[in-house]
Amino acid sequence: MGDRKAKDLFSTAEAMEIRRASEADFETMWSIFQAVVATGDTYVFSPTTSRQDCHAYWFGPGMTSFVAAQDSSILGMYKFRASQRDLGSHIANASFMVAPAAHGRGVGKAMGQHCLLEARKAGYVAMQFNFVVSTNAGAVSLWKKLGFAIVGTVPKAFKHQRLGYVDVHVMHRFLNDG
Amino acid sequence: MGDRKAKDLFSTAEAMEIRRASEADFETMWSIFQAVVATGDTYVFSPTTSRQDCHAYWFGPGMTSFVAAQDSSILGMYKFRASQRDLGSHIANASFMVAPAAHGRGVGKAMGQHCLLEARKAGYVAMQFNFVVSTNAGAVSLWKKLGFAIVGTVPKAFKHQRLGYVDVHVMHRFLNDG
Repeated sequence: MGDRKAKDLFSTAEAMEIRRASEADFETMWSIFQAVVATGDTYVFSPTTSRQDCHAYWFGPGMTSFVAAQDSSILGMYKFRASQRDLGSHIANASFMVAPAAHGRGVGKAMGQHCLLEARKAGYVAMQFNFVVSTNAGAVSLWKKLGFAIVGTVPKAFKHQRLGYVDVHVMHRFLNDG
Repeated sequence: MGDRKAKDLFSTAEAMEIRRASEADFETMWSIFQAVVATGDTYVFSPTTSRQDCHAYWFGPGMTSFVAAQDSSILGMYKFRASQRDLGSHIANASFMVAPAAHGRGVGKAMGQHCLLEARKAGYVAMQFNFVVSTNAGAVSLWKKLGFAIVGTVPKAFKHQRLGYVDVHVMHRFLNDG
């Protein structure tokens, strides 16, 4: 890794601010969402998902959404909520999207760490991802680094745009151990 | 098993009709729902779940609901829908409730078999249960008999009314093999 790249990484991490998302962020979030789902290889959403559905996904009832911002740019966003209602509401479920232009700058990791802290503060005892596409190696690797384990694999549960039906992982970690 | 019990089982299976649920069934479905969730040991719903939430659960958008009826009684109900949207919409998700008074009469099994056929007819290639409480031995055993495998286990994901936090299974089977 060259000095320049190391410096850039450092600068991004220094300057990045993760804050609650507001309606004023939605235009940019919608652009990121469209870019992320366009490839049909990581998220369950069709590339033709409506703006309205995207809005409900990030700002619907029970959602807590954050953006990772640097100066006036939004680099990514995440949200969490209860994975289940009532007798299953002690586990959080979270989703993350990073702007394609911001890949490789530690945005996903920073948001993941932030999310774990926020979910713990909100009183959740564990976090669960229900739909991690098994071929999305970057995501699987990142979540493992952040302490998640694969606790289940649903065969052929995702229709990958290039690879056809591929497996999906359920990943989980408790929040009281780190 | 005495002759009488065997005869009753036979009679129930003979006389049971599984048909699409309608709004006219809802009063009875609501009673069954309340009785089922009262024990807090099998379903994620709190015993205080509202009638409105129950209605949305059985008749909300995208739901296909059925009742198992005998004469004028409803013995149980089930529903299915897409487990995920878009690129995950080829897998069905289903839920079942049997009236406590009708337990042990094969209602769950009959509805399970019916549901597998209906989901296949509707074009789904697999069926997935996301929240089978591990201590609900009857359900786990029935789904295994009907060809489902445990493909994941989320630790302590259900707050059992008597046992505290217990594991939850994800169960799955393909629909094209029998």
